[in-house]
Amino acid sequence: MELKKPYLLFLGDAADALAAKVAQGIKTWRPEYCVGQFRLDSCKADCGLTDMSIAEAVNAGAKTLVIGVANRGGIISDEWVSVLIEALEAGMDIAAGLHNKLNDIPALVECAQKHGRSLFDVRYPSQAYPVANGKPRSGKRLLTVGTDCSVGKMYTSLAIEKEMKDRGMDADFRATGQTGILITGGGVSADCVVADFIAGAIETITPANDEAHWDVIEGQGSLFHASFAGVTTGLIHGSQADALVLCHEPTREHMRGLPEYKLPEIDVCMEANLAAARLTNPAARFVGVSVNTSALDEDAALTYMSQLEEKVGLPVVDPFRQGVGRIVDHLSEL
Amino acid sequence: MELKKPYLLFLGDAADALAAKVAQGIKTWRPEYCVGQFRLDSCKADCGLTDMSIAEAVNAGAKTLVIGVANRGGIISDEWVSVLIEALEAGMDIAAGLHNKLNDIPALVECAQKHGRSLFDVRYPSQAYPVANGKPRSGKRLLTVGTDCSVGKMYTSLAIEKEMKDRGMDADFRATGQTGILITGGGVSADCVVADFIAGAIETITPANDEAHWDVIEGQGSLFHASFAGVTTGLIHGSQADALVLCHEPTREHMRGLPEYKLPEIDVCMEANLAAARLTNPAARFVGVSVNTSALDEDAALTYMSQLEEKVGLPVVDPFRQGVGRIVDHLSEL
Repeated sequence: MELKKPYLLFLGDAADALAAKVAQGIKTWRPEYCVGQFRLDSCKADCGLTDMSIAEAVNAGAKTLVIGVANRGGIISDEWVSVLIEALEAGMDIAAGLHNKLNDIPALVECAQKHGRSLFDVRYPSQAYPVANGKPRSGKRLLTVGTDCSVGKMYTSLAIEKEMKDRGMDADFRATGQTGILITGGGVSADCVVADFIAGAIETITPANDEAHWDVIEGQGSLFHASFAGVTTGLIHGSQADALVLCHEPTREHMRGLPEYKLPEIDVCMEANLAAARLTNPAARFVGVSVNTSALDEDAALTYMSQLEEKVGLPVVDPFRQGVGRIVDHLSEL
Repeated sequence: MELKKPYLLFLGDAADALAAKVAQGIKTWRPEYCVGQFRLDSCKADCGLTDMSIAEAVNAGAKTLVIGVANRGGIISDEWVSVLIEALEAGMDIAAGLHNKLNDIPALVECAQKHGRSLFDVRYPSQAYPVANGKPRSGKRLLTVGTDCSVGKMYTSLAIEKEMKDRGMDADFRATGQTGILITGGGVSADCVVADFIAGAIETITPANDEAHWDVIEGQGSLFHASFAGVTTGLIHGSQADALVLCHEPTREHMRGLPEYKLPEIDVCMEANLAAARLTNPAARFVGVSVNTSALDEDAALTYMSQLEEKVGLPVVDPFRQGVGRIVDHLSEL
């Protein structure tokens, strides 16, 4: 599965900027993939791209309409469907990471078949993956892990990929969730794979490569999340990571969605991730910590990070405030 | 999903006793579910049940024909299909744990619909499971874990359930693989669930219960198996086990299917399982070790177990040679 570029970003009837965060992510990390944005009259979001009709987007070269907005109440409205049909008829594929599948809407399936276009439901695996073989492979891999879900693993991974590329290093972000897949056009939604094949799916999307090449792999969940740690474990094993970056959100009061569960201590969390990673790559080591300090003011954020850095003995950065340069510096010194 | 009892065990054209090990497992652990066995002329296996035709089995009360044999080369032969159709027409459901689905064979699907019968492919989940909530629930749970795959977790769990029931304790084996499901008629094939729902599936099949009730949960894989540890992790978290039993096969030279991977040390393996289990049940503890010593002679087996018992300070038994009484004794003392 590889989405055709460039994209027209569909913002639909987004109720606010947050509802269109997928589109914003694509615009932020892959502006070169975006020819414009499509908004319905009631749309309250704006990615800062040129507003285009379907016809204008096709003229500008758009090959795929990417749904960059959450659908309200999980329903794909008739208003959406009529735009999507117009896009298919005009020659675009459509890609979405929604729970509801485009491929479950008969009118879209029929129209896509008629016009030879594709509907990509990127949340759902489109291929069978093998059982992981655990064999060492060439190339280097970095994996982001977390104290919890939704602490900035995708953002951190994309920031590290960008920093590496800016320095002339050979690097590829590897997406393991639907937003990452829509941003880069490929990958696997690790939590939607059949359980037996989690590690095998990750081995597949991070294959052997040149010795100097880095795969920067987006982590998922947390070893300490009682709902999703199985996904995290398979992802760690399949990655065979040389380098780990811990992601953390310091103001969270409990594990996401689990009021009974406190966040793990940083050192305990690092130790557990290291033990898991070393099963498939005995040389695995942490190279830094990425903290999402958006809920702290600048003084508090800097104090927190400075204290944590002293404790863990590794670069601690907020990728949004400071970038990830110090983590990549540290990586390059090893 | 709950299979109707009693069963007619279908041994088909089993090439040897091993090919019919699923049927043998049902006969061993649930003899009261079995009215007889059906064998084709070329069958080389024998579960020691009365040989019956389809008509005889129906007269004897059989409600489900259970395919207790592996299909050669993964192909469900025409000879099989004609017997299965006869069974459906005679009023039986059919259950199988094969990779190939009964529900993918049009002749069977059509016949089942026509006669109002069901085809159960127990390897594949027949319901949607929720994301695990991690909330403590009443009742007690025991989980078998392993140094590797295929070291006797199902056998040990069934033996513990039987020992508990023989003592008048309230206990239920909870199946997490296709053989266990066919034996008991219910459960979930944990490795075939979508990754996000592994722990949630286990929570679902081991619900809150009377305080004195024990769920004896069949483990899967191993935290140290590079292909399947994600499944194991989710299973441990969903179980919220009070008691763990480690299963081990002492002569294995490498992890099953992974020539590059050695088995973990027993103490390291116990520590890792305990850490994972304590995330969702801080009171989790090991209550014994179950060793499959079938590859050792009796002297070597007893010496090995005696040395291991001294090392771990817990009852160490081979359930086949000695039963699991000492593990249940230990459990009852806690």
